Amino acid sequence: MNLKEMIDSTRIKWMDNDGPENDIVISSRIRIARNLAGVSFFEKMNATDIETVFNTMQLVIAKFESMQLIRLDQLSNIERNILMEKHLISPDLLKNPEQKAVVLSDDQIISIMINEEDHLRLQCLLPGLQLYQAWKLINELDDLLEQKLEYAFSEQWGYLTSCPTNVGTGLRASVMLHLPALVMSKQIDIVTGVVSMMKLAIRGLYGEGSEAVGNLYQISNQITLGRTEEEILNSLIAIIKHLIEQEREARQALQQDKKHWLEDRVFRAYGMLKNARLLTADEAMKLISDVRLGVDLNIIPELAPAVLNELIIMTRPVYLIKQAQKELNSLERDVLRAELVRNKLVLGN
Amino acid sequence: MNLKEMIDSTRIKWMDNDGPENDIVISSRIRIARNLAGVSFFEKMNATDIETVFNTMQLVIAKFESMQLIRLDQLSNIERNILMEKHLISPDLLKNPEQKAVVLSDDQIISIMINEEDHLRLQCLLPGLQLYQAWKLINELDDLLEQKLEYAFSEQWGYLTSCPTNVGTGLRASVMLHLPALVMSKQIDIVTGVVSMMKLAIRGLYGEGSEAVGNLYQISNQITLGRTEEEILNSLIAIIKHLIEQEREARQALQQDKKHWLEDRVFRAYGMLKNARLLTADEAMKLISDVRLGVDLNIIPELAPAVLNELIIMTRPVYLIKQAQKELNSLERDVLRAELVRNKLVLGN
Repeated sequence: MNLKEMIDSTRIKWMDNDGPENDIVISSRIRIARNLAGVSFFEKMNATDIETVFNTMQLVIAKFESMQLIRLDQLSNIERNILMEKHLISPDLLKNPEQKAVVLSDDQIISIMINEEDHLRLQCLLPGLQLYQAWKLINELDDLLEQKLEYAFSEQWGYLTSCPTNVGTGLRASVMLHLPALVMSKQIDIVTGVVSMMKLAIRGLYGEGSEAVGNLYQISNQITLGRTEEEILNSLIAIIKHLIEQEREARQALQQDKKHWLEDRVFRAYGMLKNARLLTADEAMKLISDVRLGVDLNIIPELAPAVLNELIIMTRPVYLIKQAQKELNSLERDVLRAELVRNKLVLGN
Repeated sequence: MNLKEMIDSTRIKWMDNDGPENDIVISSRIRIARNLAGVSFFEKMNATDIETVFNTMQLVIAKFESMQLIRLDQLSNIERNILMEKHLISPDLLKNPEQKAVVLSDDQIISIMINEEDHLRLQCLLPGLQLYQAWKLINELDDLLEQKLEYAFSEQWGYLTSCPTNVGTGLRASVMLHLPALVMSKQIDIVTGVVSMMKLAIRGLYGEGSEAVGNLYQISNQITLGRTEEEILNSLIAIIKHLIEQEREARQALQQDKKHWLEDRVFRAYGMLKNARLLTADEAMKLISDVRLGVDLNIIPELAPAVLNELIIMTRPVYLIKQAQKELNSLERDVLRAELVRNKLVLGN
């Protein structure tokens, strides 16, 4: 698959749903920030610095068989946005695309953002709860790169980064959780409160602020300075496991106390997705969440969870525009979205 | 089919949907009131009078091959209510069942209520707009009965009845219309206003007052004194035809101006009916109405309209209790209703 085909595809490894705890944990992500020694940090970079980072990485990546580098200005605006919707690059990488590049592994598990807030941001995204595994892969990549590059590093502070919150290990770990039962049983505010008290960040998928479209919550560490990678990961995983327990208990309670209500909600959502002729992005996410819960609780046994992850990507506005190959107004988007979802669920394509 | 099987069945002739204008007119009904000469009228009847009417009718009906008489106290409360839900008897016939009886034709087109407000109320119910045809059938029946019975009749006033609004021809004609597009386009209040001004009664199916569950409206004449049957029928039919035109125009406007919205609404309703695990009677009627509109506009071509008429009967509380053969609480009713609807639409039984 060439890079452009890879970008178009709605299937990517992290959405395969074959990871541990995959009834609740959609994906695990590890990201580290690195900067090259001897090159100005992002805000002070001039054109030469930018090209230096590009050229350095181009030479290094050329030696990696399963990785490709592409400059963001070689992609269309739509293609860049699709990469963001797939969580392979950050929103920041979309700004001034002529200064940015991204390295992608063929399986889209690994990406390296170039000239984002730091010279390099190495990211690994895996399905399910696999933070250690993701960290291991990032570590191996980091070691390989360090053999060929000199990083900005201080004996006292660790790896140096543009933003102080990343100084130290530079490690940012995050997990995407599907917490519909905690939302339905109105316990989610307590959960988000506890998570914030633990100095973790919690936010909705795609959303800024606290609203979580489709009951998808991203939880990540905030502070990296003064803590080892193991400490960061262990404390995050402990809390994630606790949340998994709570969500499972809430699901069990719903199945016991509100069985009919739950089945009704799940099947109505499934019926809507298979029948609607107009779907907004928000409604699609809500319905996908309900159906996903039904799949995970074996209320709808015939549907593969990976299909629902794929629908999340497929129903994003930018993907719709890519499909239509033209700009779409709001009505046209809602019509096309409903059509794609229907085709996927009814015809399986 | 014996009488009890007939009562159980959810298929009856007037719901076959094969009458004229059947995209809008569900059914046409003609009812006339007759009283036997020499027997006290209803409010003054004593036990002997009641038995006299029973016995007289028993003897007469015994000579009609395709008709059966049953005393209401020989039916269970549920069976009596099913007859009412099917519009074969009036709510009034349920009171004091030991005084009441009903005659049904095998095809359930003709019913004669005995000892309702009048000694006899002859009713004919046909699918579609067939007021003349229904009147013809009632007339033939009336003539047959009059050969064997002596009616209370005054040269000056015509047929005498308990209630003055029925004196004269004693004719009550009514038509059940499905007017979803006039409701959706918020023109229905104008329509009901005009109908009332024409001295016609308009009310919802099953509902007292003005609320029409499932966009089903029953329109009937109110005054019979001083007008011939032809005048009554002609003026009612003229207004019905006008309403049919208006509803068709409203449907066309929806298809032209709000095509996507309309298709979305129709298919969502269809999806709900096929998938819900809990359905209230009111929601079922609303959804059936939307799907019926979709069938009539060929948006859902594969579904027979008669199935939807059958669903209207099947989803009534009393029919559910009959199916379950026990009392049901509200949750149990909603579960069973959803199951019956699903089985009908998904499995076709």
